[in-house]
Amino acid sequence: MMGFFQRTPSLRTALRHLSPYSTFSPAAPTRRPTGDLCSLFCPAASRQFGVCCRKLHSGADASEPSPAAAPKRLPFSTITGEDLAFFGKVLPGRAITDPDLLESSNVDWLKSVRGSSEVLLRPQTTEEVSQILKYCNGRNLAVNPQGGNTGLVGGGVPVYDEVILSTALMNRILTFDSISGILTCQAGCVLENLSIYLEERDYIMPLDLGAKGSCHIGGNVATNAGGLRLLRYGSLHGTVLGLEVVLADGRVLDCLATLRKDNTGYDLKQLFIGSEGTLGVITAVSILCPRQPKSVNVVFLGCETFDQLLRTFQLCRGMLGEILSAFEFLDSECMRLLNTHLKLPNPISDCSFYIVIETSGSNATHDAEKLHNFLEEAMASSLVTDGTIATEDSKIKALWSMRERVTEALTHDGFTYKYDVSLPVERIYQLVTDMREHLGHRAKSVVGYGHVGDGNLHLNITSPAKDPALLAAIEPFVYQWTASCQGSISAEHGLGLKKRNYIYYSKPTQAVALMGDIKAMLDPKGILNPYKTLPDNLK
Amino acid sequence: MMGFFQRTPSLRTALRHLSPYSTFSPAAPTRRPTGDLCSLFCPAASRQFGVCCRKLHSGADASEPSPAAAPKRLPFSTITGEDLAFFGKVLPGRAITDPDLLESSNVDWLKSVRGSSEVLLRPQTTEEVSQILKYCNGRNLAVNPQGGNTGLVGGGVPVYDEVILSTALMNRILTFDSISGILTCQAGCVLENLSIYLEERDYIMPLDLGAKGSCHIGGNVATNAGGLRLLRYGSLHGTVLGLEVVLADGRVLDCLATLRKDNTGYDLKQLFIGSEGTLGVITAVSILCPRQPKSVNVVFLGCETFDQLLRTFQLCRGMLGEILSAFEFLDSECMRLLNTHLKLPNPISDCSFYIVIETSGSNATHDAEKLHNFLEEAMASSLVTDGTIATEDSKIKALWSMRERVTEALTHDGFTYKYDVSLPVERIYQLVTDMREHLGHRAKSVVGYGHVGDGNLHLNITSPAKDPALLAAIEPFVYQWTASCQGSISAEHGLGLKKRNYIYYSKPTQAVALMGDIKAMLDPKGILNPYKTLPDNLK
Repeated sequence: MMGFFQRTPSLRTALRHLSPYSTFSPAAPTRRPTGDLCSLFCPAASRQFGVCCRKLHSGADASEPSPAAAPKRLPFSTITGEDLAFFGKVLPGRAITDPDLLESSNVDWLKSVRGSSEVLLRPQTTEEVSQILKYCNGRNLAVNPQGGNTGLVGGGVPVYDEVILSTALMNRILTFDSISGILTCQAGCVLENLSIYLEERDYIMPLDLGAKGSCHIGGNVATNAGGLRLLRYGSLHGTVLGLEVVLADGRVLDCLATLRKDNTGYDLKQLFIGSEGTLGVITAVSILCPRQPKSVNVVFLGCETFDQLLRTFQLCRGMLGEILSAFEFLDSECMRLLNTHLKLPNPISDCSFYIVIETSGSNATHDAEKLHNFLEEAMASSLVTDGTIATEDSKIKALWSMRERVTEALTHDGFTYKYDVSLPVERIYQLVTDMREHLGHRAKSVVGYGHVGDGNLHLNITSPAKDPALLAAIEPFVYQWTASCQGSISAEHGLGLKKRNYIYYSKPTQAVALMGDIKAMLDPKGILNPYKTLPDNLK
Repeated sequence: MMGFFQRTPSLRTALRHLSPYSTFSPAAPTRRPTGDLCSLFCPAASRQFGVCCRKLHSGADASEPSPAAAPKRLPFSTITGEDLAFFGKVLPGRAITDPDLLESSNVDWLKSVRGSSEVLLRPQTTEEVSQILKYCNGRNLAVNPQGGNTGLVGGGVPVYDEVILSTALMNRILTFDSISGILTCQAGCVLENLSIYLEERDYIMPLDLGAKGSCHIGGNVATNAGGLRLLRYGSLHGTVLGLEVVLADGRVLDCLATLRKDNTGYDLKQLFIGSEGTLGVITAVSILCPRQPKSVNVVFLGCETFDQLLRTFQLCRGMLGEILSAFEFLDSECMRLLNTHLKLPNPISDCSFYIVIETSGSNATHDAEKLHNFLEEAMASSLVTDGTIATEDSKIKALWSMRERVTEALTHDGFTYKYDVSLPVERIYQLVTDMREHLGHRAKSVVGYGHVGDGNLHLNITSPAKDPALLAAIEPFVYQWTASCQGSISAEHGLGLKKRNYIYYSKPTQAVALMGDIKAMLDPKGILNPYKTLPDNLK
């Protein structure tokens, strides 16, 4: 029965941290609406924001501005010499004005959005952040909070001349309780550094993503980062126990509790998780960390239908239960691109769908046995038609790469239109099928992959070159389709600049209006991360 | 090594649902400040709220009103015949005014708080709730949202003549997705009914508590109920995926997403989780449900020191890992009360501390082996000195009863002063020791038990009768001690009426002020559950 499963002897492996989507390899912007975006890279215009920028944003070849384009600059003050003197006094040597040094903070890593800020502030303490915001609020200066600048929706860089407030030097671990597993640290700690610190203490961070070498925990929390461990450890709304936040006017909100239970009033920290820096600047985080798993296994399976894949998921949840840590999929089109463009051979026989399952547990023998029992059952029920299992690092990496290198393969296939939606899990592949049928020969490739366990589909469509007619066929079709299933048009990437005006596809008017009320309450002048998250026209 | 562990052969057991604290057995109010509370049962005054009630609330034998006493009635309108006619039209036969039928909704189940509402509304739909709130807001009528009325802090009953808005008839299950495990239902579904529904489908609710036979899921969410499964499945902030809420003015806020991932804007539903009905009325809930465990085991252990108990917890987290579902403790004073008052024999030899560990997993053989390995190591390291293991229902129940019947034993010991605090886990027992030393011979018994895994201590102090001098020695000592460790003065019970004015022990002024801003934004007239959660004087 299991003869064609290639087993490796050692079960001792390290946990793999490979994000399929948020990697740092060069990639096309996540989506490109009609015309040239405000948000598209435009060195010539970079220091002439105002009208010039607005024109570019509106799109040279479109009659209407794209919903993703930046709105007109709001009437904030502009930086003066006096302002710079103040910043230099509060942050000696850490108020950067050198254009070369500012360059990397003005541009997102996808190189799809460029701002023209003239000052980058690098505070080290909460008190410094408080002083800066109090001053900027008084002066009506807009502020762009910035973590590791690894976002995908243009939320982490200035759009015009906002003051960049970086958490890069706020990188101290404050406390770690080795009994409860509760870590507190400053917002600028790099996720990977926290992981290393914890792994030395037999713990792990409850989140992991491809950008971990650069992203800051404060940015992760501000964007409610999902990543690879969500299926197992849940979202940051559950694992973040406390936050310290500086409000727009400089008030420090201390909700940095280190308690698993606290029912003394409203859970205010939740407001800031996923608010993309528009409601306050997160300066410190406390988070509940799980114990490090002692055993990790990865299995790569093939199915003939998506229904079989879903039934495999159900079987898997039942039989692997508490050790299941990832259930990811890619379709045969993804495999074709991996073969064609990256020369990655299919590790099993050709199938319509491929599954990557990861287990993480505390007992290698038990985990192997559970996996064996599950695989036997999946084969006996004819749910899966082929598969291979990896228990040692190199093979685990090889199998994971089939899933994570799809993004890279796509960049070789052509210009890529990228979507990140979440849907009821039983519907996620229907969108790919419907899109394929809807586009017919207009698209080069239409591929689907993603996190089955989280109902999160990455839908990607390629064409030989940028193709406004193709885009017009994709949008708003993809958003309407998602909305018709009560799905989310941004499962994990947030709204930022690029998707802010698409919010009504996933949120009712009343909810968006309430967001506006909360924004007005916490940041009445709107200085915090303007042009992001909230739509231009609140209904 | 393991000779004195009494093993039972069968590993097949059902999950036990035994709350140690939230049971329905008659018990003293959770805390009793100086003087007679406003909130104490006062039939004579029950229909003469106003001044009479205020006097009673102020305390007959105290110079100052207790912080737990109700404030003066706020200037809301009073119910008229016209109002009753409107309610009767919107809810034919479901606007109750019969005093006998109103009785049980006017009084909390501890019989510690009595209101004098003259009308109980029982809507069946969100639209009806919306019509009621719109009307009440227009008329300036105060409203007390009520679920199963199982709260412990007087949050779920009227204080004066608030209109009672019950979710009892909103008890329909809306959808269940057997692939993702996501349930949506109306707010009035009884927790136990949801559990039964799910267990038939091989799932369980992610929360469980003693009041499950009466409590409503809407009330659970409104109070951010903790309970027995929090260690394993986390808090409702992580497991609740969506809410439908009717705001004070009747607007319906539809955030009833059924998605694990949705980063399109602020996560508004989080505001209502734990807001105790003061910000909106929850009318529907969507929640992520875990698979039903196939195997449950319980072990009862003894330790000589609390440090050994903590080291056992650490060992346990490492070796039981993903199957650990509860780690509870009681001290030798609890055991003495169980022996003395309930004639429950100690199942093991006498120790200073006792631990109840529960495992829940997907493979009985693996779970038994993990437990065996852990116990061998715990014994070999001399962390535990005795223990017994249960794998079959009757013995599991017997072991759990040692933990859950402490509350009952206390009621036989005398008048009980009860505290529910959370602290850094390594400090939780120090409070018991310090309190014992602080009180000396003034207290009859000072006992500690609770959820080690959640850092949640139940501290109980008995005396032969109600004793204002003893209370004065306990408070504010207990709150100051908790605050000095950045603990929470209400870990899982909420603030409600009784604890609202103690909020500053656990929340800084800025946070409480922001709570006030949010309340004013969402409920400008303050009609929703007045006198609850927010302190009387916002600083």
